Formats: sequence, C-alpha cells, structure tokens
Amino acid sequence: MSQTLLERIRVVLVDTSHPGNIGATARAMHTMGLGQLVLVRPRLFPHPDATARASGATRILDDARVVATLDQALHRAALTIGLTARPREFAGRVLPVREAAAEALRHAAAGEVALVFGSEMSGLSNEELAHCGIAATIPANPDYASLNLAAAVQIAAYELRVGATGGKVWQAPRFAPATADEIEQLYEHARRTLVSIEFLRPQMPRRLIARLRRLFARAGLEKEEINILRGILARIDELRAGQQGDE
Amino acid sequence: MSQTLLERIRVVLVDTSHPGNIGATARAMHTMGLGQLVLVRPRLFPHPDATARASGATRILDDARVVATLDQALHRAALTIGLTARPREFAGRVLPVREAAAEALRHAAAGEVALVFGSEMSGLSNEELAHCGIAATIPANPDYASLNLAAAVQIAAYELRVGATGGKVWQAPRFAPATADEIEQLYEHARRTLVSIEFLRPQMPRRLIARLRRLFARAGLEKEEINILRGILARIDELRAGQQGDE
Repeated sequence: MSQTLLERIRVVLVDTSHPGNIGATARAMHTMGLGQLVLVRPRLFPHPDATARASGATRILDDARVVATLDQALHRAALTIGLTARPREFAGRVLPVREAAAEALRHAAAGEVALVFGSEMSGLSNEELAHCGIAATIPANPDYASLNLAAAVQIAAYELRVGATGGKVWQAPRFAPATADEIEQLYEHARRTLVSIEFLRPQMPRRLIARLRRLFARAGLEKEEINILRGILARIDELRAGQQGDE
Repeated sequence: MSQTLLERIRVVLVDTSHPGNIGATARAMHTMGLGQLVLVRPRLFPHPDATARASGATRILDDARVVATLDQALHRAALTIGLTARPREFAGRVLPVREAAAEALRHAAAGEVALVFGSEMSGLSNEELAHCGIAATIPANPDYASLNLAAAVQIAAYELRVGATGGKVWQAPRFAPATADEIEQLYEHARRTLVSIEFLRPQMPRRLIARLRRLFARAGLEKEEINILRGILARIDELRAGQQGDE
C-alpha cells in the first residue's frame, strides 16, 4: 500500500538548466521509491550528464515525460505542492515539507499528487507557485537557504517515504532477555567470586556491585550473555579452587 | 542555543573519491547550519570541482580539516554516529536517522558530536563502523538504497536542523478569525438571499447550506472574509429588491 501511494506522486522540474541535476533528481527519487518524473522545458535533455548522475536510476530518466507547460505537467493531479524557499507571495497555505508530505500522502490515497520544483537559479516564480494548491518549505539556514535542486528533491522524497512507510529501518534482532532471577543469580555469583579472589572485601561489596548493576542494566542483559558471564565466573572459581588446593 | 548545538556537530567524510561530492557536502551542511567538516584521506582536495559544487559555501571548505586516520577525525567527540545502509554487522544500536539526530542533539548539549560517512563506492567498512557509538540508517527503497554521498549528508543535516530548531518555516500571518456568531449570521444571510433569488427552495435549503458549511469550515473563515461575503449577499439583496420593485 505504501508503495502504491508513492507511485501516485510525481516530481515536476520546471526550467532545469543543468542536466546533471535531472539525473541526480532521478537518483534521489529512486532511493525513496518515487518513479514519475515530468520535465517542463528542460534546457538539455536527454544528456550524458543526466545519465551519469542518475547512477542506477536511469529507468526513471527513460520514463520521464517532457512537456512544454506547467499545466501539462500538472494534468490530473488532485493536489499540487510547490517547493519554495520564498513563500511570502503565496496566497494559500505554506507548510514545512514534513507536513506537506503528510498531506501529499493523504491525497495520494485517492488520486494523483504533483511536487513542483523551480529552476536552479530562481526557484518557482510567483506565477508558477500560484498554480499550486500548497506551498512547501524546507527548514534551512536563514542566511543560506540555497539547497541544490536534487538535494531539495531528496529531502521531499525522504519525507514522503518516512510518511508512507513509518521510516522503519533494519534493527538488530533482540535475543531472549534474561529474567530478573537470572540477573540476580549473576550478581550473587559475581559477589561470591570477587570476594573469593579478594578483589572485593566481604564487608564492603556494595559499591562495586552497584556499579556493575548500573553498567549491565544500561546494556540490558540477554540470557546468552548471562551464561557467558557466569561461565567466566565459574572458570575463575575453578582456578581459585585449584590454587587453594596447592596452598 | 540551537545554532550552538549545530556548531558542535562535525561531519566526517572518509576516503571520498570525488571532490565534487566534498563541495556538495559543504553546501548541504551550510544550508542546515552545520559548519565543521573533517576529511579523512580525500583522494583530491582542494580541487576546483569541490569549490564549484560548494556554491556559496566555500568557507566550510576553507575551514575543513584534512586528517590521515578516522581516529584523528573523531578526536574529542563524545558521540560518534556512523551513517550506513548496511548496519547488520554493527554490534551497537542502529537507529533511523531521525532518532540518531535527536540523540546527537542531546549529546551536543554537553560536548562534541561526529557524523561519519564512508566512501561513495562502499560506505563505511565494518571496522570503521566499529569506531562509532551508534549506527544511523536513512530509510530508503530496499531495492535501491544507493543515496549519493552529499544527498545522505543533506538528509542527516536536515534532520539535525529540524530537531534543533523545531523545523519552523515562515507562515502566512493569520488574520482575525471570524467568531461562531458571525459565521452563523453569514449562513442565515446566505439562506435568506438564496431563497429570495429562488436558487434555494424554502422547503429544502438544508443540503446546499450543509455543503457551503463544509467548504467554509475547511477554509476557516476570517472576519474580513465574512464582511466580503456578506457584502456580496447584500448587493444581491439590493438588486433583487430593485427587480421586485420593477415587477
């Protein structure tokens, strides 16, 4: 389902000057599962720089539509979102890109959505932005908000993916956690052993054990780790018993 | 304060092949308010391609430190986060980049933080990743997770900025909202006028008014807009009164 939503969201680049940015946009889109690219009056396309910067994402370039007007690019879109660093002249709602992505996904459940990016030098004109239902802005350094075109596409596409999929990433499998009993038996064993090797004095073991408790509590002990630690303690006990036999 | 936090976070690039990516990284950092760049064994640096792709962010390149080993790059960092698309061999915690950014900002309140990115071809090696306290992963298309190096830096820097500043962007000033009374008076006025011009039959006005309510509720009416709409209704009332006088 989330992939279906992403497939209904097209990226529209208007008046792009550098074909390298078109390729980098295709790569940014593909990394996040977007596939539909529409180019309005690209200065140079197709072009070897576009293919080179697309890296493995050339299928998106092969399928890209080239059109002459923004209206053609927005055809059948139920929601159009214009990305801009200067939304002040825009009459409609201005949202941070994260909220705009959420809105895009809600609309994508029912229809097509277009994300529109202006030229490298000047972004979307006020007139182009007026064709959009929502303006979206990427939070940025107010002294230097000049994101590269493909970098802006990358952030918007990332927010769409996180919104569509929950942003889950691979997590290390969690092994069986130790029970409270097993953990307490470990500390009791450690206390006995540390006393027997005279690392701990029987009268004042509290503080060291408390520090060990703190360390292992932070780590969250697993059953297997309890076995390993108790194995080490048991080996120490054996050595100690052997030594005491020699004395 | 948020800017102070961002200034304590350095970006470390290891074994970068293409100087253009170093420049694009500087630009990505500057757009989000990061400033410290450390380069471990860059193949070519300084280089005209780096300067060109940095656009206005050349100060970050001028201030970049070049070092021979990852350990030198991580010097004095209280937290080191390795960005990787393949965290499976990593022994520690693996977090999505958004959560890793939150953790970075918590640590930056007290000390220095390093974000580490591997080479374009192969990312961070397992050995390099083992120097990091946390691994961070950018949610991506599982069939094509190959983000450009500077694009990955852009997303991490964006998450840091959103985390540090709350991700606020410019919002259109909100004009005084209409009160519930004013809104009800508008609908009552509209009902009267629409009946008088025989657009609404007095017996069944409910459904149309309900649709208008839905439309205007979604927009959120302002006082000034109520005045405009009631002005239009009043003008219709006048015309209607004049017509009826003629009949």
